[in-house]
Amino acid sequence: MELGLIGLGKMGGNMRERIRRAGHTVIGYDRNPDLADAASLQELVTKLQGPRVVWVMVPAGAATQATVEELAELLSPGDVVVDGGNSRWTDDIAHAELLAAKGIGFVDCGVSGGVWGLENGYALMYGGGAEHVLKVQPIFDALKPEGEFGSVHAGKVGAGHFAKMVHNGIEYAMMQAFAEGWELLEASDAVTDVREVFRSWQEGTVIKSWLLDLAVRALDGDEHLDKLRGYAQDSGEGRWTVEAAIDHAVPLPAITASLFARFASRQDDSPQMKMIAALRNQFGGHAVESK
Amino acid sequence: MELGLIGLGKMGGNMRERIRRAGHTVIGYDRNPDLADAASLQELVTKLQGPRVVWVMVPAGAATQATVEELAELLSPGDVVVDGGNSRWTDDIAHAELLAAKGIGFVDCGVSGGVWGLENGYALMYGGGAEHVLKVQPIFDALKPEGEFGSVHAGKVGAGHFAKMVHNGIEYAMMQAFAEGWELLEASDAVTDVREVFRSWQEGTVIKSWLLDLAVRALDGDEHLDKLRGYAQDSGEGRWTVEAAIDHAVPLPAITASLFARFASRQDDSPQMKMIAALRNQFGGHAVESK
Amino acid sequence: MELGLIGLGKMGGNMRERIRRAGHTVIGYDRNPDLADAASLQELVTKLQGPRVVWVMVPAGAATQATVEELAELLSPGDVVVDGGNSRWTDDIAHAELLAAKGIGFVDCGVSGGVWGLENGYALMYGGGAEHVLKVQPIFDALKPEGEFGSVHAGKVGAGHFAKMVHNGIEYAMMQAFAEGWELLEASDAVTDVREVFRSWQEGTVIKSWLLDLAVRALDGDEHLDKLRGYAQDSGEGRWTVEAAIDHAVPLPAITASLFARFASRQDDSPQMKMIAALRNQFGGHAVESK
Amino acid sequence: MELGLIGLGKMGGNMRERIRRAGHTVIGYDRNPDLADAASLQELVTKLQGPRVVWVMVPAGAATQATVEELAELLSPGDVVVDGGNSRWTDDIAHAELLAAKGIGFVDCGVSGGVWGLENGYALMYGGGAEHVLKVQPIFDALKPEGEFGSVHAGKVGAGHFAKMVHNGIEYAMMQAFAEGWELLEASDAVTDVREVFRSWQEGTVIKSWLLDLAVRALDGDEHLDKLRGYAQDSGEGRWTVEAAIDHAVPLPAITASLFARFASRQDDSPQMKMIAALRNQFGGHAVESK
Repeated sequence: MELGLIGLGKMGGNMRERIRRAGHTVIGYDRNPDLADAASLQELVTKLQGPRVVWVMVPAGAATQATVEELAELLSPGDVVVDGGNSRWTDDIAHAELLAAKGIGFVDCGVSGGVWGLENGYALMYGGGAEHVLKVQPIFDALKPEGEFGSVHAGKVGAGHFAKMVHNGIEYAMMQAFAEGWELLEASDAVTDVREVFRSWQEGTVIKSWLLDLAVRALDGDEHLDKLRGYAQDSGEGRWTVEAAIDHAVPLPAITASLFARFASRQDDSPQMKMIAALRNQFGGHAVESK
Repeated sequence: MELGLIGLGKMGGNMRERIRRAGHTVIGYDRNPDLADAASLQELVTKLQGPRVVWVMVPAGAATQATVEELAELLSPGDVVVDGGNSRWTDDIAHAELLAAKGIGFVDCGVSGGVWGLENGYALMYGGGAEHVLKVQPIFDALKPEGEFGSVHAGKVGAGHFAKMVHNGIEYAMMQAFAEGWELLEASDAVTDVREVFRSWQEGTVIKSWLLDLAVRALDGDEHLDKLRGYAQDSGEGRWTVEAAIDHAVPLPAITASLFARFASRQDDSPQMKMIAALRNQFGGHAVESK
Repeated sequence: MELGLIGLGKMGGNMRERIRRAGHTVIGYDRNPDLADAASLQELVTKLQGPRVVWVMVPAGAATQATVEELAELLSPGDVVVDGGNSRWTDDIAHAELLAAKGIGFVDCGVSGGVWGLENGYALMYGGGAEHVLKVQPIFDALKPEGEFGSVHAGKVGAGHFAKMVHNGIEYAMMQAFAEGWELLEASDAVTDVREVFRSWQEGTVIKSWLLDLAVRALDGDEHLDKLRGYAQDSGEGRWTVEAAIDHAVPLPAITASLFARFASRQDDSPQMKMIAALRNQFGGHAVESK
Repeated sequence: MELGLIGLGKMGGNMRERIRRAGHTVIGYDRNPDLADAASLQELVTKLQGPRVVWVMVPAGAATQATVEELAELLSPGDVVVDGGNSRWTDDIAHAELLAAKGIGFVDCGVSGGVWGLENGYALMYGGGAEHVLKVQPIFDALKPEGEFGSVHAGKVGAGHFAKMVHNGIEYAMMQAFAEGWELLEASDAVTDVREVFRSWQEGTVIKSWLLDLAVRALDGDEHLDKLRGYAQDSGEGRWTVEAAIDHAVPLPAITASLFARFASRQDDSPQMKMIAALRNQFGGHAVESK
């Protein structure tokens, strides 16, 4: 089938390649003309035969918003827009309504896979009406990993991004779990080969996982991670996961702790710990470290 | 080779079977004579040719302590005792010293595998002097999973149980990660098929793992876990992990949150939340729920 | 001076009384005509001489929104609206803009005091332009506690509610601190009189505080809080505090833990702990508690 | 009455002064002869008329252990030893037994007050048999703050240090509460005068407390705490509080978060966050910060 694909960056470019390998036709658009197959969204739409499927793969927020609005003007009733970016699930409802007013369908799709997706396939979680999902299905099948798993129609509009968001929240806490365990092993006097302990865990344990494999890969490159700073960004989904939990009054202690650990990792000095130091000094005459 | 194995319960019994399948001779002892190959520790020791290797697989604490003390009297210089139970790593040092005074070697070994170990092999983490480990190596090789991973000489005496303890701490937080994510998905209005979302994650995602596979198995048996109470024991290693972290001044927020969630799950009512309710009532006249 | 006061519930009614005791004239409006001095907002506005100050003390969200919109139609340039309810600080900006378009000033004011406010005064945190604050100052002075503390011009529009929100976040964690300590003391075998320990802390300690005094009051009425359920509502500000922290990438582990403890307290059974139980059963054959 | 006081450092020296001001006789001993009234423990014991009360105020652990052992040899049946240091409550049982074998009584006493104690009095929490407490009562009365609060017979041997330990745990979380709130206020664009917000909270709020007063004092000296590093020691009691909670299966999320925040504050770089950075780089090609 034919697909219009908007956004040909690191993710979008690889996805175009994987979809083409599956035998589909992809007309790609990107602001960078060196990457693009069409010179404009207008041209991209013109090049596709209806009913069209157009996959948006641009940064969440303003860029996605502008693209959806432009597509609402350019597309025709019966076409479908897929938002495969990292949009917040709450944005999906508005986008679906905007497009529905023009008779255009909307499917939101959370995509996981990173740099491994081109070869191994992308995990896909999508939400929307069955009739719209059906039109995109061949593309989902091309992108997903081989085998019986890796893609799911998770529910209504928003469900795809919601599921992907929760996936990332879980990922935060799993990473934190390995990170905490690794730090504790490194602090032990008895354990003399932490890397080999991690390596051994790859078989026969309860914690065997792809993240563990990646940890071993990382330690093979830098046994004590001496080359790195303990500094971690967060990508939005972790924050939204906690906010969704607050909305639903669901306690998320481990995921939230993982998010806060990232926040703290980016502070050169901790304002709150200055206050702790100041209070200890006030009541106990405890020595403080001055700058 | 020959192995003396003390403790033939759920774990020990299956381990005897796996070792025998590998062609070794196991003389087993258990307080339950129906399970035992020897009528007493004395007889077990007599039946083994020296230098002997005796594997202790009894409950941590008093039972292990008593068994090690009895073996110190029964065994000979050059023999080796392996503690494969869930002992605290701090006990290992004392056991090694007690046995070393008699010329007997000591190796501590953390064993992971649960009900899956007999068929899939047991993950093993062991600590002790190389000369003692060498004598046990054929048994380790019989117990471990096939393939290149699954066993490790983690370091000095205590390192095996320390590594296993940290493994369990990581396991706590990974389980908590999936549990939090599952609860949040179940709370969502948009996501209509949480089980299928979990199932799909088994390929192509960052969080693919054996625990995820087990979660899918559990959900296949009981889609919303309606048959279960939200009640979870903890087994000791989680507590020790936090205590070890405190000893080393290592922050473990996610693992500790996971432990505390288990504590709270076992309370019929929360005393601390009674105090919160009482305080809210005091300053704000907020309604409280009385019994 | 004259004040229009909208909302004469538990808080508003007491505030009217305290303002009147200070010698000011209050025209109150409430949907309940038994409480009201004016039959409508229209009448309330008519009864006040300009430039008017109208204090809104109705539930945050839709009710406050509707009231502000109605006042925007009824009031005149030079008048000032104060929002003294528990509005989210993000709403204040919109309200200020809506009113500014009509030449009407806006001040947001967080009010603390609960059932003690009438006699002891209300702590006030307000935000807005100095020229608008100036017009409300006599009312602030009437409401605040005696002495040099208890009211503050915290900053721009929104600063009052932001400061009040943070106050409540701190309050959550302080309450949680006492609650955790109390539960631990109650669990001790050695400590035989927990209530007297709390009582003694009211002098000479680092933790002496009004909340401690309230805890002692509560324990005097019900020594082990046997009459209460461990069940605590949360009022919105705690959630907003965490969301504000996420917006600013500020780690708030203790405040967030306090919020999550309240969420958990309201669950009859914990879905996430069902998943923990299910996973333990899957890999270890651990007994689970079935319903 | 007469008191023997061992340890005349910052705390002990001020306590001697406060006890003397109350009209009692204090014979003090310290390793530093410039501070001491007696040249040795032997001389101190000789100078006191029986039945003697000897207050030990030396560092917890080895120093207290050695002192108690020496006193067990020097004192007579009917004498009482008070351990007023920061001993772990679990040590108290052993000390009481050691002394009881010689007919000597033992009382453990947690002391709070810091640099303010000399003038304001020390909060005292003590544990032990009523007959031993009775002999020390005049000293407790001299040390405690004026008024009806500030001292408590908390229970059996160990109860005093247990109560003091929990006090410090609560203190950790209260300090953390103010610290988190302060950091969030400082991060706000709307709130322009955080110090004045803190100052205002000293009256009329739910969070008014001595710690808040101290925070204002600290901010008056250094408005944004620019002179301090965000670095905080922990003193032992916080760790013991968490360990006691683990022993009793009591969840302490806020107190533990406060302890972990201090651990993290003392790390130049976070090993666990290096692992997070490494994993993000592995699966996503995310940029990492190298040293």
